[in-house]
Amino acid sequence: MEFAKPLPSYLVTRYHGWKATSYKDNQGWYRRLATEGQRPRAMVISCCDSRVHVTSIFGADQGEFFIHRNIANLVPPFAPDGDHHGTSAAVEYAVTALKVSHLIVLGHSQCGGVQGCIDMCKGNAPQLEEKTSFVGRWMEILRPKFDGVAGIEDPEQQARQFERQAVVASLENLMTFPFIESSVKAGQLSLHGLWTDIGEGGLECYDPKTGLFAPV
Amino acid sequence: MEFAKPLPSYLVTRYHGWKATSYKDNQGWYRRLATEGQRPRAMVISCCDSRVHVTSIFGADQGEFFIHRNIANLVPPFAPDGDHHGTSAAVEYAVTALKVSHLIVLGHSQCGGVQGCIDMCKGNAPQLEEKTSFVGRWMEILRPKFDGVAGIEDPEQQARQFERQAVVASLENLMTFPFIESSVKAGQLSLHGLWTDIGEGGLECYDPKTGLFAPV
Amino acid sequence: MEFAKPLPSYLVTRYHGWKATSYKDNQGWYRRLATEGQRPRAMVISCCDSRVHVTSIFGADQGEFFIHRNIANLVPPFAPDGDHHGTSAAVEYAVTALKVSHLIVLGHSQCGGVQGCIDMCKGNAPQLEEKTSFVGRWMEILRPKFDGVAGIEDPEQQARQFERQAVVASLENLMTFPFIESSVKAGQLSLHGLWTDIGEGGLECYDPKTGLFAPV
Amino acid sequence: MEFAKPLPSYLVTRYHGWKATSYKDNQGWYRRLATEGQRPRAMVISCCDSRVHVTSIFGADQGEFFIHRNIANLVPPFAPDGDHHGTSAAVEYAVTALKVSHLIVLGHSQCGGVQGCIDMCKGNAPQLEEKTSFVGRWMEILRPKFDGVAGIEDPEQQARQFERQAVVASLENLMTFPFIESSVKAGQLSLHGLWTDIGEGGLECYDPKTGLFAPV
Repeated sequence: MEFAKPLPSYLVTRYHGWKATSYKDNQGWYRRLATEGQRPRAMVISCCDSRVHVTSIFGADQGEFFIHRNIANLVPPFAPDGDHHGTSAAVEYAVTALKVSHLIVLGHSQCGGVQGCIDMCKGNAPQLEEKTSFVGRWMEILRPKFDGVAGIEDPEQQARQFERQAVVASLENLMTFPFIESSVKAGQLSLHGLWTDIGEGGLECYDPKTGLFAPV
Repeated sequence: MEFAKPLPSYLVTRYHGWKATSYKDNQGWYRRLATEGQRPRAMVISCCDSRVHVTSIFGADQGEFFIHRNIANLVPPFAPDGDHHGTSAAVEYAVTALKVSHLIVLGHSQCGGVQGCIDMCKGNAPQLEEKTSFVGRWMEILRPKFDGVAGIEDPEQQARQFERQAVVASLENLMTFPFIESSVKAGQLSLHGLWTDIGEGGLECYDPKTGLFAPV
Repeated sequence: MEFAKPLPSYLVTRYHGWKATSYKDNQGWYRRLATEGQRPRAMVISCCDSRVHVTSIFGADQGEFFIHRNIANLVPPFAPDGDHHGTSAAVEYAVTALKVSHLIVLGHSQCGGVQGCIDMCKGNAPQLEEKTSFVGRWMEILRPKFDGVAGIEDPEQQARQFERQAVVASLENLMTFPFIESSVKAGQLSLHGLWTDIGEGGLECYDPKTGLFAPV
Repeated sequence: MEFAKPLPSYLVTRYHGWKATSYKDNQGWYRRLATEGQRPRAMVISCCDSRVHVTSIFGADQGEFFIHRNIANLVPPFAPDGDHHGTSAAVEYAVTALKVSHLIVLGHSQCGGVQGCIDMCKGNAPQLEEKTSFVGRWMEILRPKFDGVAGIEDPEQQARQFERQAVVASLENLMTFPFIESSVKAGQLSLHGLWTDIGEGGLECYDPKTGLFAPV
């Protein structure tokens, strides 16, 4: 594999800085995490977006959050067809092996994946419609929710609402997994839906009573 | 959706702390990221494991890294079959839409997913062999690499080597994506393979000349 | 121009080393920076002093910081008189064209420029008082702050305090630029004042609540 | 000064990393630099551009280079009129107080300041022509050189050539300073003109015999 390159030097420098400070000051905890294994309290499903790091927003330290990040924080419906399902595998591991107590879906504003789905639904993104588009096929998970926001005229408002609906879709799909449904009913697991506004630093939580998101 | 619950109060507290400090002190940057969009330099593919946060190790701040996290930091081979492929979608978006310059695969010690694959390969995990096991099916991606470590007698050493091979498998699979191969050949993208030791805080980089991992 | 000479060979050697390593390993990023342009998060105003490189202290890599360096990290007051104002031009470009989110003034210990200003203020540097002294005229920017440190008897302590006041003077003068004042008020830009101790590697940040510098 | 903010936390983290590694490993040298003062071998005049750090290209360490950075690496002609001249002050300090042996002007590709000057010279930038534009007035230094590149039709080629002429203009203006002319003639100082290509990592040196730039 001649294509593999050495790590860029600026990252080498930062790593050595981390090793000499954060690691060194917490060595006992790191070693315990290594020998005793992880015991995270929550799983977070968030977007790959470089502007939204749940570890920052929640001040997460080593061992607290089991984090799955994919395009648009989507969870596909339960489909045990023998294929590679990365998101379903992550959820299964968190709930059945690690037995997390909270499962948090975190959406965000200005989501490129959600915008791509809007473009697809409006017929403006033929390249995403192609069978070979991984992003397009992935965003199909969200397509059924478009009817609910199709009537919003302002593009900004429509996108912000659709981003929130991506969180709702994931929560609904999570409940189609038998092991999640049973854990929730047994009071061992609770689900939470969040949406954050990148520019203003806002955070909203899905309220099951109203079906709306409200600032926390 | 009665199952959705309010956010745990300890996270509400932490969020408000972040909003009043990190967000407030960097408001201009957050607003700019919101209006101008992200322009990350690198994509990182790492594990969901709660003990390994690339944002800590590399001091990553908002806007720097596009991060995909799944079980065992695996990338499946290129397979444009029209199904939902979360990892492939994330990679496609990073390389073709965001045009990241670096694609880093970060593996780690004590990986539960890799251990599960070893158990499967040794015939000790019938439940993972079942068609309905998402984790089992996901770890199939790594199975072809088991031959290379099957002869290692010490279980600890075998697991550590197999974790490194998970990184190599992902690098090799990445190169099966046409848009990655062409970007690498055009000098627009470079791939990097890393493995970190949780307990000791070590970091090793795959060296293409020797085929081995060496401390950075 | 017969006076221009070839580059000293030790620098030619170092350049070729950089080209074969740092450049080659990051070629994709350099090419992207060239075609897409820079988008730095912060502007830093620091001293020309060879002992203080902000790129070291903050591990700054290509594209992160827009850096202006002059004698004693000074910013003159807003004066749109049609003359060549290098510092004002740099600040204007950073804030209005690049729209940086942070503007950091970094002062330092053992500053030769600040010491020259002390000598001037005490009447011990007639050569700096001459109209033809560029350094003397430049340091006039700082002179109004001398009253605040004139009573400090120990020369070392007086110099260290005056260096910090050079940072404060620059912050105050920055706020006299209309485009800075408006950006700060709009929450798009924040100012930061720092002072570093060369020998001990210390770093202090100006605290607006106390009017003092405190270790970060 | 309520506008001054705490240092962004990602920079605090990086600083502590630097302190625990680079500083700690070189403490003796830092302390010596503090007590004995700087003795740089060369002064470098380069652009503020975030993509061009001479400390990277030349692997510069603490104490080696006295660095002045302004928009487009320009030096105005000698003009001892009693005003604040930041660049002239930096040059005066380097040559007469520090007695550097080399004075290097480093230009670069994709320079925003040089492009602004082209726009001005072609009458396409009325806002830069205004008396209140600091960038416009600063770029006047380069305007006299436009005649030499006005006939180049391809905009890319024209910009690249004008960037090189900015280096030549600075070298010529440097020789109008009496203390530079005399140091050069006495064999105590040599001037060097460089231009670097950001995307390709190239470095060219002005050759006084041909009047052209050639790769080093």
